[in-house]
Amino acid sequence: FWPLDTPALEMAELLVGKYGEDEKLIYRFLDHGQREVAMRYDLTVPLARVMANHPELPLPFKRYQSALVWRADSPQRGRYREFMQFDVDTVGSLDVLSDVEMIQLIERTLKALGQNKFVIHLSHRGVTGAVLESMGIDPSKQILIFRYLDKIKKTGRDATRENIGQVIGDKKAEELLSTLIGSEAESRLEKLLMDNPAWQNLRQIADLLELNKNPHLLLDLSIVRGLNYYTGLVFETFLGEFSEVGSVFSGGRYDDLMRQLTGKDLPAIGASIGVDRLLSVIKGMGIGHRQSCCLTVLPGLEKESLELAERLRSANLDITLILGRRDLAKQLRYANSIGATQTIIYGEQEADSQTFLIKKMDTGEQLRVKGVEQLISELNRG
Amino acid sequence: FWPLDTPALEMAELLVGKYGEDEKLIYRFLDHGQREVAMRYDLTVPLARVMANHPELPLPFKRYQSALVWRADSPQRGRYREFMQFDVDTVGSLDVLSDVEMIQLIERTLKALGQNKFVIHLSHRGVTGAVLESMGIDPSKQILIFRYLDKIKKTGRDATRENIGQVIGDKKAEELLSTLIGSEAESRLEKLLMDNPAWQNLRQIADLLELNKNPHLLLDLSIVRGLNYYTGLVFETFLGEFSEVGSVFSGGRYDDLMRQLTGKDLPAIGASIGVDRLLSVIKGMGIGHRQSCCLTVLPGLEKESLELAERLRSANLDITLILGRRDLAKQLRYANSIGATQTIIYGEQEADSQTFLIKKMDTGEQLRVKGVEQLISELNRG
Repeated sequence: FWPLDTPALEMAELLVGKYGEDEKLIYRFLDHGQREVAMRYDLTVPLARVMANHPELPLPFKRYQSALVWRADSPQRGRYREFMQFDVDTVGSLDVLSDVEMIQLIERTLKALGQNKFVIHLSHRGVTGAVLESMGIDPSKQILIFRYLDKIKKTGRDATRENIGQVIGDKKAEELLSTLIGSEAESRLEKLLMDNPAWQNLRQIADLLELNKNPHLLLDLSIVRGLNYYTGLVFETFLGEFSEVGSVFSGGRYDDLMRQLTGKDLPAIGASIGVDRLLSVIKGMGIGHRQSCCLTVLPGLEKESLELAERLRSANLDITLILGRRDLAKQLRYANSIGATQTIIYGEQEADSQTFLIKKMDTGEQLRVKGVEQLISELNRG
Repeated sequence: FWPLDTPALEMAELLVGKYGEDEKLIYRFLDHGQREVAMRYDLTVPLARVMANHPELPLPFKRYQSALVWRADSPQRGRYREFMQFDVDTVGSLDVLSDVEMIQLIERTLKALGQNKFVIHLSHRGVTGAVLESMGIDPSKQILIFRYLDKIKKTGRDATRENIGQVIGDKKAEELLSTLIGSEAESRLEKLLMDNPAWQNLRQIADLLELNKNPHLLLDLSIVRGLNYYTGLVFETFLGEFSEVGSVFSGGRYDDLMRQLTGKDLPAIGASIGVDRLLSVIKGMGIGHRQSCCLTVLPGLEKESLELAERLRSANLDITLILGRRDLAKQLRYANSIGATQTIIYGEQEADSQTFLIKKMDTGEQLRVKGVEQLISELNRG
């Protein structure tokens, strides 16, 4: 996948009419040239503009983008007016391998981030649509039913049945849920939709992914995704112990959206990470932590401390020289205040003998080592 | 240094009155709550807001920030309306070691980026000011003289003397330039400013940096920097063969600005990278290049190609599966169009015998290897 960057400001007319009722959340204003501009609201519409402006791009065009987006929403826990999105998309291919690759990419990405308890839930808009059709449900009701179904993990099965029941009646709502959900869903659907192309497509993807053998993959027809534009495979990813934060890596196939946006026939599949949400969980797991050491600067030893800092930094250690404090006690207080885990006390005696006194800031324990090599290995031990 | 992030939108009143006549370049508008907001124009003013809002931060507070800024400027080569800035600052310390550390940080950063022909030019606002004072020049003329001096690398010595001559007369202009510039500048200044605290400060920094022994450091009193707020050490960094792009890492000490912005006494020193400018040069030097390989997907071998791609990706290779094309010739054309350097041709025969045909895309040369291990090492060779 190629990296792609797009500007924070787009012409407002590009964004207008693309986000339904959420359009009111777009930040827009007149720039210095009296052009109406808008701040980036997502990464999909800018991608469509790039595809429309650059017909020379080879197809399929595979890009990733990590960028801020802005929404004038009411801020609440886990929802901000400014947040970082990471999107990856393959544009211009109907090939089932592009669906398979996207799922494998999610798996590889989360493993690279040190996760091993995630599950990617796979479903298919065409399959859910075919089930509704087989039940004789009016297609105009589909969007509303999908909206209720999309919330089932939050509201629970009963409330979902009740909500959908108000659209198509309780009996049909129960029939729908018991067709889509539960351990026998797959065999029921196999019977019901054997020759349906959407079902065949989903089966083929599952087969190429060896879904049944992979503990990270799960067929889950209750997944539909909130956005209207999905047409095929859809998926959400939950992190075992942190599933309450919701899906951290989601997406699906959208074969019509790019045509609406660009006028060109560009089937596509994409996936998106809510970076803040994912980071909040990963940080909670202690990833990204690094040993932080302070080094005293005692009067008359400025040059010596500087030189030692340089040597230790060359060994890839994070060293903070303690600036502007002559007194050792004050220096140690500063080290504490910035959360240093270790402080190297480097006085006349230490400089003369090239021994070093390490103070472990949590226990207060002090340790004397001889020579820089031993100092480095002790600091790395933490 | 701690990472710090600040939002793209600040309350407009924070930015107003901070950038002189450039204030007109700020993007500002009313948000949905009728608050006047402005897009981030630099990283220094937001840092000041953070310092004012968070008195609990330990001092010195050392942070770095890498973020986009926006200016409604006329775009031209190397100057954009949106660009990435990287800033690093130590706030709340007059300690000469914080000046020294900043220069060492520049040196280490550029070396880590693979550069070895850069020179950091060091000067001092206090020294330049003292020279003007010793010549009896009216302090009110200083800003204008600094503005001309700042452009000397572009305009040349003669034009600079002429420009400054219009402010203080030709004779004094010549005297000023010959005091500041040339191989004897240092000894002349030593005689002229021996007891001046600014000169002593600069000498101390140069001494701690062992400036005379370090080929990457140069005393250059023609450096003054464009911004008015610098008070002490100032510096610019030029990349040997690419010095025509201007300074790529610049900054200086600003001991008064934070008081103006926060009402608190917070002496500070900072440095800034124009990231786009630096990247344009580094990219030109071929850094960041990575081998890119395509892998054919021939009819009936979808699963085999997927599996091979996964194995190669696990070995950290960049593998593009060729999607949606049955014909080998078309697949090779696609590989060419995306700039792949190598393509693995993987047909029935290869799958059966676990041999692989590698096509080098530049020469057209084909190479057959046996087994995945050998394939990986050959692909890595490029």
